[in-house]
Order: sequence, then structure tokens, then C-alpha cells
Amino acid sequence: MKPKVLIVMGSDSDLPVMEASEEILRKFNIPYDSTIASAHRSPGRAVKIASEAEKRGIEVIIAGAGMAAHLAGVLAAHTILPVIGVPIDSSSFRGLDSLLSTVQMPPGVPVATVAVGKNGAKNAAILAAQIIARKDPDLARRLKRYKRNLSEEVEKKAEALRGRTR
Amino acid sequence: MKPKVLIVMGSDSDLPVMEASEEILRKFNIPYDSTIASAHRSPGRAVKIASEAEKRGIEVIIAGAGMAAHLAGVLAAHTILPVIGVPIDSSSFRGLDSLLSTVQMPPGVPVATVAVGKNGAKNAAILAAQIIARKDPDLARRLKRYKRNLSEEVEKKAEALRGRTR
Amino acid sequence: MKPKVLIVMGSDSDLPVMEASEEILRKFNIPYDSTIASAHRSPGRAVKIASEAEKRGIEVIIAGAGMAAHLAGVLAAHTILPVIGVPIDSSSFRGLDSLLSTVQMPPGVPVATVAVGKNGAKNAAILAAQIIARKDPDLARRLKRYKRNLSEEVEKKAEALRGRTR
Amino acid sequence: MKPKVLIVMGSDSDLPVMEASEEILRKFNIPYDSTIASAHRSPGRAVKIASEAEKRGIEVIIAGAGMAAHLAGVLAAHTILPVIGVPIDSSSFRGLDSLLSTVQMPPGVPVATVAVGKNGAKNAAILAAQIIARKDPDLARRLKRYKRNLSEEVEKKAEALRGRTR
Amino acid sequence: MKPKVLIVMGSDSDLPVMEASEEILRKFNIPYDSTIASAHRSPGRAVKIASEAEKRGIEVIIAGAGMAAHLAGVLAAHTILPVIGVPIDSSSFRGLDSLLSTVQMPPGVPVATVAVGKNGAKNAAILAAQIIARKDPDLARRLKRYKRNLSEEVEKKAEALRGRTR
Amino acid sequence: MKPKVLIVMGSDSDLPVMEASEEILRKFNIPYDSTIASAHRSPGRAVKIASEAEKRGIEVIIAGAGMAAHLAGVLAAHTILPVIGVPIDSSSFRGLDSLLSTVQMPPGVPVATVAVGKNGAKNAAILAAQIIARKDPDLARRLKRYKRNLSEEVEKKAEALRGRTR
Amino acid sequence: MKPKVLIVMGSDSDLPVMEASEEILRKFNIPYDSTIASAHRSPGRAVKIASEAEKRGIEVIIAGAGMAAHLAGVLAAHTILPVIGVPIDSSSFRGLDSLLSTVQMPPGVPVATVAVGKNGAKNAAILAAQIIARKDPDLARRLKRYKRNLSEEVEKKAEALRGRTR
Amino acid sequence: MKPKVLIVMGSDSDLPVMEASEEILRKFNIPYDSTIASAHRSPGRAVKIASEAEKRGIEVIIAGAGMAAHLAGVLAAHTILPVIGVPIDSSSFRGLDSLLSTVQMPPGVPVATVAVGKNGAKNAAILAAQIIARKDPDLARRLKRYKRNLSEEVEKKAEALRGRTR
Repeated sequence: MKPKVLIVMGSDSDLPVMEASEEILRKFNIPYDSTIASAHRSPGRAVKIASEAEKRGIEVIIAGAGMAAHLAGVLAAHTILPVIGVPIDSSSFRGLDSLLSTVQMPPGVPVATVAVGKNGAKNAAILAAQIIARKDPDLARRLKRYKRNLSEEVEKKAEALRGRTR
Repeated sequence: MKPKVLIVMGSDSDLPVMEASEEILRKFNIPYDSTIASAHRSPGRAVKIASEAEKRGIEVIIAGAGMAAHLAGVLAAHTILPVIGVPIDSSSFRGLDSLLSTVQMPPGVPVATVAVGKNGAKNAAILAAQIIARKDPDLARRLKRYKRNLSEEVEKKAEALRGRTR
Repeated sequence: MKPKVLIVMGSDSDLPVMEASEEILRKFNIPYDSTIASAHRSPGRAVKIASEAEKRGIEVIIAGAGMAAHLAGVLAAHTILPVIGVPIDSSSFRGLDSLLSTVQMPPGVPVATVAVGKNGAKNAAILAAQIIARKDPDLARRLKRYKRNLSEEVEKKAEALRGRTR
Repeated sequence: MKPKVLIVMGSDSDLPVMEASEEILRKFNIPYDSTIASAHRSPGRAVKIASEAEKRGIEVIIAGAGMAAHLAGVLAAHTILPVIGVPIDSSSFRGLDSLLSTVQMPPGVPVATVAVGKNGAKNAAILAAQIIARKDPDLARRLKRYKRNLSEEVEKKAEALRGRTR
Repeated sequence: MKPKVLIVMGSDSDLPVMEASEEILRKFNIPYDSTIASAHRSPGRAVKIASEAEKRGIEVIIAGAGMAAHLAGVLAAHTILPVIGVPIDSSSFRGLDSLLSTVQMPPGVPVATVAVGKNGAKNAAILAAQIIARKDPDLARRLKRYKRNLSEEVEKKAEALRGRTR
Repeated sequence: MKPKVLIVMGSDSDLPVMEASEEILRKFNIPYDSTIASAHRSPGRAVKIASEAEKRGIEVIIAGAGMAAHLAGVLAAHTILPVIGVPIDSSSFRGLDSLLSTVQMPPGVPVATVAVGKNGAKNAAILAAQIIARKDPDLARRLKRYKRNLSEEVEKKAEALRGRTR
Repeated sequence: MKPKVLIVMGSDSDLPVMEASEEILRKFNIPYDSTIASAHRSPGRAVKIASEAEKRGIEVIIAGAGMAAHLAGVLAAHTILPVIGVPIDSSSFRGLDSLLSTVQMPPGVPVATVAVGKNGAKNAAILAAQIIARKDPDLARRLKRYKRNLSEEVEKKAEALRGRTR
Repeated sequence: MKPKVLIVMGSDSDLPVMEASEEILRKFNIPYDSTIASAHRSPGRAVKIASEAEKRGIEVIIAGAGMAAHLAGVLAAHTILPVIGVPIDSSSFRGLDSLLSTVQMPPGVPVATVAVGKNGAKNAAILAAQIIARKDPDLARRLKRYKRNLSEEVEKKAEALRGRTR
């Protein structure tokens, strides 16, 4: 099956974080491709990946990077596909550097930024699913079911806590 | 024409910022609806707006709010439409509060966050256009032209600067 | 005995922090109820809990949440009971995100915010007791005794340190 | 009429901010007393004010201060009344110093902290009203009406914006 | 021998940090007294300690505290002795809260603030020695020798590194 | 009269801030000398000033500087006199850079840091007076009077506010 | 004369800041070329400029940009020339975003970062001169003279202040 | 062989970080000298090292220091050689203090600042190589090869990831 989401990470050390995106995409049965490209160490590769993504049938790009996280911005500069940025906490500033580097894009070239780290990687995949669901009614149904499940899980946990009342 | 983008702002004082979203949507000829709903002062209204958006034909929601900016998160809790959050700089923390309140969403409910303030509002609309373009090839073409124009404008400005060389 | 304080936490992972609230309430012999509700994953439940709290005889709500901590704000939007917010340190920003998301409420809907984490959870319960004591003279007496004990404990520790003088 | 809320500010330069508290208290018809006491320049006065407040019939204390804002904490150290802290933005750190100095109280002595500046001062008074309403059913009714009004105002503003739809 | 420096800490959990002050004072042969007093839990004790310090022959007060670190400020409010504040890193904000609470004193009541944590505690004692040396020429000589030693230690360490040259 | 306090500022643009130190020293009748020396642009001069200060009869040095404020640290490296650092807000970081550059001194060489800006400059002079008062009983008396005045001024302002009670 | 320094700015709105670089280069008689290239709006142009710079005889690149300032990093990815980054304060975060985006480069691709804003732009040019001086002994002499002048200017300003002594 | 790069660190505890600079210099076959000098504990030594560096044939200085990191600035004040500053994360502020102390230099005396910690130390050496390569064409070739290798390594890692596609 042709991938619809392209996950790009700045380094293989980002994989433990970005796996959370992969897991969600598998759960929603969305085909994806994961690769590595650095905005700084392999800029040509990053440009190529972004420029060719649309023709390959990619619908959404997810980019995860740390420190001065330029990856999402560089990809967004070369495509009109929505680019979702996951700031990764890999320096002593605990993701403040990667968050600001990802979200504070100048006018003209947006990056859809999510939370720092693993939670953000998970949400990036849900956001990608929400975007793709705009033309995939079946996926939209799965997202609604997922939303209901989130709510029901909370109810169950609340139930489990009930013994605490005093 | 039925609106495809719903712009929600927390207060009418956010209008001078959120107009930047409207301007871009008009430029791309995307019908939109702008309204006000506060996550805290009119929570029922916010819930209703989000819950009914999909049925109304809305494709993307843009939410702009300041301070403890819960608006985008509250809307996202009630819809599977992509929700784009614009943090507004309306407190003494210059948007750090609204940025963190908007972007640091817990796993399960993403908000696609853009830059603080007017630049972010502009980019929110471009991102909305990029999402809608996934099923509107003509809009995709306009986005590509827009991207080329951005580049050509830079070339022109660079040309204008040329006299400075020494 | 009917609960007077309602402790709501965004996730069961917040329990190790919020237990500090429970412990203090037990110490002051104030009946309470602990439950889970997420502003984002189970928003309907959060609204219901807040809307019905007053009728159930609840006097004060304590809400603990991390990241973009909207829980206290969402509860406060649906009740006129005092809502105390405990920012929880559960992201890479060490509670700065949850503190700003909790305290920077827009005009009209206050959240009584306490310190980040376990110290805050403890103080939230003391603050709840101080509020309830406004109509419970016996509880007021216990709070005064607690305050004296705090002071005496310091004296004892100072005494224990005395050997250090040189 | 005997004051039920005591507003204490660290300096008369804080008055333009703290007037927002006074205005709300007048709106809710809650008698109050405003005074000045500095935790550092007139510590004895601050201690006296806090120690005697309960006997004077005060139900809630609101304390507004800037910089290393110790005022709320010092008052809270000398009373079991709920103390609400309003961090004031009066240094080059724009209220980050006063927010952290007010909210990060050690275990045992809570301060109910609200947003920085004028918005916080307004919310401090609403929070005080919510606390007093625990034994004043008529005030509770006024708070509910106020909450409805907040919501209706938003509806009106949304209506006024309607011409913008495109 | 009568103590010349009074070390006050907010809690016995601050002792591992404040021992660095004690060690330096012993090294310089300056008699000191260490005690515990909390600005919030035992405010009367803190006031008493500060008010009586001068009469006891104390020349300098060193105060170490964490979180909303009001201790140094409260002591400084009650004495004209120089008060040195050591911000302690005991919350999730890693000492930013205690630093700002200690250093941002309002005009009229200074606190001589040093670095956060153990390094600061060490420097607080050296600063105390520098102040006392203003009327103790022998201590001044010891301080000069200490300064020379600091420099010689660096030379020795540099010498030890020499093998690294390439 | 020979100066007892040496005020050093990094640039003549710091004069409007450091005048607050001068004003207080004049008020306390303490002779002082104000000069300019940059840790970076005239390092030799800074070293000379610090090295000779003690011989000239200086008791305390006050150093005001902005940005990467190394001035106080450089002076402290060359003298055993107490050095008081005033962080000046002269960059886009509003004094956070100068505060951290001044206060976070490594072990061995303390700088007594006060608040950022004009309030800090004022307090630096009061702190200098407190240090000098250790061997000048008359100055100690003036400091006590000043402290009482601070308190009485607050009382007067509180009195002036009294009409506000409602 | 062929330019030795290439000044690239992200937008013509950065010119008022980057003029400070130009002024210094003229002062040192170093030929330069100023142009505009955006890492996001005209990425191809940025890549071309960086890739060809060495062949054109450029010795150092100075890049000024604001917000998520990727420009310096993108240029550095395409050249082995030293790239100096000037973070520009053009968002509500006052340059914290551009500083972190510029300085926190991942291993392998350094950017020589200077201070935020105009001061940084000036220093960028001095740093460029210092680098070029490594093979231009005459420029080295001019830099030494400049350094002496900096010091003499401070002496003059100190002299002018002398009347203030008291 | 005479050293071309001088690595200075503020303390031997900085060695584990600064070794990353040494490793890169060895890789590029650039002779270097590593030493220790503290801006505060051995200021004379720091001045001497900087003043004599040029005559010794040093081309670039790399300075690593933590906390109020004045070392790079002090060295830069005494030489016209390019000085590269590596902020070290050795306090509770995780390098924010050392970054701002290093990068926010006042106009006239630049420090070429790189990322906080080990990544920065590595990049400092690459930047030094880039500067020296301005007059060493062979080193320039090695830098280009290094850049190609960076890119090829990314390709290899991307290849290794390929199995993940789904």
C-alpha cells in the first residue's frame, strides 16, 4: 500500500520518540513511511524528500527534531502538504529550543506544531489522521470511535478510583 | 457559499489579530465564518460550535485566544476536525502563557499550533488552505503559485537592495 | 458522610501527586470524593461533574492536571464553587506549562492556583479547609492548631540543630 | 457595614491595578476595606493587619504586590483566612517574579494565586465572592446571574461579528 | 566565642546545601550560629531572630530558602544588618522561583543575593567574611591568602592538564 | 572627604540607573566616587580600579552593567572588598541576561546581587550603607531611622487611602 | 573590489538591524555584499547563495533573522565558510526564539552566534573582521587600533564623569 | 608542532565536555593546546593567556565555562583572535545562565557562541577548523569531505530504517 504519511526525523536517536507516531498510524490503519533526513547534515536529502512527497501520494508530513529544530520548517519550505512538527527534548533546554524553533515560523510557511516529546509524537499522528479523514469517511468514523474510547477509558479509571471516596 | 473554515476567537479584542486569518482566506477564495466563543465565559456555546461544525460542512477550525488559552483545546475535545490554535499575546507574559496552553495538549487531542500573534494568524489560514487543498486540486494550484510568489518577492527585494553592495 | 471537597484529576497518573490533598483532608476530617475527568478526553464528564457539584453539597473543588492544564478552568467555567488548581509537573517544561495554563485565567472565571506538584496538592487541601472553615468554627479551631503545630515543629527542628553552633 | 473582604496592597502605586478588585466587590455589593502594608517596609503593620482580620469579621484577604511579592505569603502566615494573591507586573520581568513569589508557597501556608495584573485583580474579587457565597445564598444567586451575563455578552458580541461571514 | 554570622534556613531539608556556608566560615575561623526559621510556618520566630541579631553581636545574616523564598526578605525587613540570600533549588523550577523571590526586593530593603544552591551557599560565607573583614584586618589577610590559593590551585590543575597538548 | 563607596558602571548609558545609588549615598552622607570601566572594552582599567580600591580607602564597590554583565565579577576577581552587582536592563531580555551573568558566580568569588534596574541601584546603596555601618555606629542609627521612615510612610499612605473603605 | 563578507538577511525589515554590520565593515574597509534570502520563503535562493559563496571569494557569511531563525543554519548546511548568526528580535518573545533557533545547532554544523539585535549585528562584523585578519596583517593592525580606541573612549567618558565625585 | 587552537576551560570539571573539542581537532589534524584558567579565580592567568596567544601562533581560542560564564568574554577582551564560547551546563539553570553570559556581549567585543554542552564543544572545534581553513586549502578539503560524510551517514541510517515502512 502506498504511504499516506511521511515521518521524517532528524536523527536515528529520535526514533524512540517518533515510534509513538508510528504506533498511532498503525492503529488507524494508515500506511506510512519513516525516514531520516537532517536539515543541516543532509539538507539536499531533506529538500528532495519534501519536494517529491506530494507526487508520491503523501498527504501529510510529520517531522520530529530537537535543538534548533529546523527540519519541519525546511520541509514546509518545499511543499504545500501540511507539515506537522514534533519538537524533541534532546538538549539541556528540555525542548524549549526545539518548540520555539518549530512553532515560531515566519508568515507564509506554517508548521502545525504539537507538544514536546512522546505525547506530541502521538498527537502528530492523530492530527495527520484528522487531516486525511477530510477525504476518507471511514477513517473519520474510526477517529470518532477513538474519541469515544478515550472518554470511556476515563470513565473506567474513574470507576476504579471510586473506592477512594471517604 | 457554505463556509469551509470556522474562525473562533475568545474575545472581540482578538479581532485585530485574527483578521490576518480572514485576509488570507479571502485571498485564497475560501469561504469562512468568524465568531466569538469563550472556553470559560460561554463554554456551552464553544461546545455547541465545535460539535456542530462538521455537520455544517466546516473542514478546519482556527481558534485564537490569549492568556490560559483553552479555546482551541476545548474545541478539539468536541470534534474530529483539525483544530489550528493561534496563541495571542494579550498578557504580560507576551504569549508564552497562550503558546504553552495551546501547544502542550495531552495525548489524544491534538491542536495544530502556529506562531504567537498576527504572523501565526496568517499562517493558520495558510495551513487551513493546505489541509483543504488535499481534496481541492485547484486550491493546491493556488497554494503553489502563492509559494512561488513568496520566493519571487524575496528576489525583488534582494534586487532592490543591490545598490548597497560595496 | 457527604463529601465537601471534590478532587478531580486529569489522569490516574496524577494520583501520586493528588494523594497529598487527600491526606490533608483526612487529617482535618473533611469528607471528600476523588475522581478522574479529562478536560480533553472526557469533556462531557468534566462538565457534568462541575455542574452537579454544588447540588451534591460540594463546597470546594480541587483540580490537578499537567501540560496544557485546562481542567481547573473547564470546571470553573461550569460552577460558582471556588475551584483550586494544582499544576502538575508532567512534561519536559517541569510545570511551567501547567502553572501558566492554570493561573492565567481570563477575567470572569478565576482559578485559585497553588504551587506546582506535591507541595501544591497539600496546600490545595489546606486552602479548601480554610474556605470551609468560614462556616465551620470547629474546623477553624483545627486549622489554628495546625498552624501552631507548624511553628512548634520548626522550633523543635531548630533545637535539634543547636549542636551545630560553633 | 462591616467589611468582609480586606484588600491589602504593597504600595499605593499598585492602586490602579487593585481598583479592579474594588470595582467587582462593589458590583456584588460586598463591603470591603482597602489598605496599604508592605511585607518589607512595614512588616509589623502587615502582621497586625493579618492577625486581627478574622476578629474584625473579614472573610477573605486579597493581597496585591509586585517584584519579590512576599505580601500575600506574609499575611497568610498570620491568619487562617483564605488569602488570595494578585501578582503585579511592576518590574522588568513583567510579573514572572511576582507570580513565582506568590504561588510557589511552601507546604503548610497556601496562597490562592490568580493571574498577573488587572485581570487577576478582577478575578481575585470574583473568587472572594465565590468563597463568601458559601454562606450567603443571595450572593450565590448574584454570582450565577453574573456567570449567565458573561455568556450572554459573548453571544451578543458574536452576533455583532456576524456581518463578517463570507 | 560569640557568633558573628547567623545562618538561618527555612527547613532542615536545606541543611545539605547550607553546610557549604558553615564549612567556609570554619575555614576562615569565623564563629557562627545555624538555626531554622520559616518565614511562613514560624514567622514570629523569624522576626524575633532578625530583630535580636544585632544585639547578640551578629554582623551578617545568611538566609537560605527555596520555592517562594521569602526568608531572606523577612529577615531583612527586621534588621539593618546585611542579609545575604541563598536561593535553594527545591522545586520543579530549579531555583528560578527562589532566585527571583530573593533578589527582586522592592526599594528600601536589600538582600545580597548569591548563586542558586551549594555554590551560592559557599559564596555567601565568603561574602560574609569580606564584610566582617572591613573591621578585622587579620581576616582580610586570610581572605587575600584564600584568593591567592584559588589562583594557585588553577595553575596546578592547568599544569596537570599539560600532558594533553598535542 | 575620601570616598568610601566606589560606583563603577559599564557605560555612561548606565548613569540614569546608577544615579539612584548616588542619591541614596548622598542621603546617608556617605562619600562616594562614580566612574566608568568596561570589563570588555577597557579591561585593564577595570582591573586597576578594583586592585587599588582597598588602598584608596574604599569599603564597598557597587558595579552596574547590562547584557552579559561581567563587570561586577571582574572587579570581584581583583579585590577582597564586598562587590555589589546591579543588573541593568539594557537588552531585549529585560535584565534576565544581566541578572544571571551577575548572580551565578562560581564558588570562590561572590557578587552580592540586587534587583534589576533602578530599584536595585537604590538597594545597592542601602546595602553598601549597611556594610559600612558595621563600623560606623552613627550610620547605623541613620539606617534605623530610615527603616522607621519607610514604615511611617506606608502608614501615611494607608491613611490617605482610608476614604476608599466601603 | 570583490566582497569578502556576505550579509544575508531574512527580510528587508531586518535591514535597520543589519546596517550595524555594514557600518562596521565599512569602517574596517572590508568589501561586502548585502542581500536578502529567506530560509522558508526562498529556500532555493538561500541554498544557491551559500553554495556559491566560497567560489565568489567570500570569506565569512553573516546571517540575520528573527523568529524561528533558520537562515544561518540553512546557509551553514551548504558551505564550509564560517557563518555568523545574528538573532533578531522581531516577535513577542524578544529574540529568545531567534537566539535558541540560531545557537542550538546540532553537532556537525556550527553557527557562530552573537548577541540579539543591533549590538549583535555590530559584533558580527567585528568577528568577521577578526576572522579575515587571520590572513590580512593590516586588518589585524586596524583591529588592534580599534580595541585601543574602545579603551580610550571609556577613559574619556570616565574623565567626563569625574565632576560627580562627592 | 605549534598549536593553532587554544582550548581554555574554567575548571577541570569542564574537561568531559571540552574533550569533544579535542577529539574533533585531532580528527582534522589541527594541533591544539588545552589549559585551565578561571576568569574569576585566576584572572591574571586568563589575561596572560589571551594576551600572548597571538604571538604564540594561536589562530583561534575556544573557551568553555559554566554558570556566569565570563571566561570567553574576558579572553576576547585581551585579543583580536576569534574567541569561540562554549556555554557549559553546570548549574541548576541548565546552561541558560552560561549561554546568556557568553552570547550577550556588549558591542565591540564579540564572542562566537555555540550550543550549550558537548554538542557545542564539538561544533566549536569545527568552527575553529572553518576559520583556519580560510588560509589552509588542505584543511578546507578535509572539511568538505567531513560535510559529505555527515550527509552519507544520514543516508545510511535512513537506509537502515527502511524496514519500518508499512
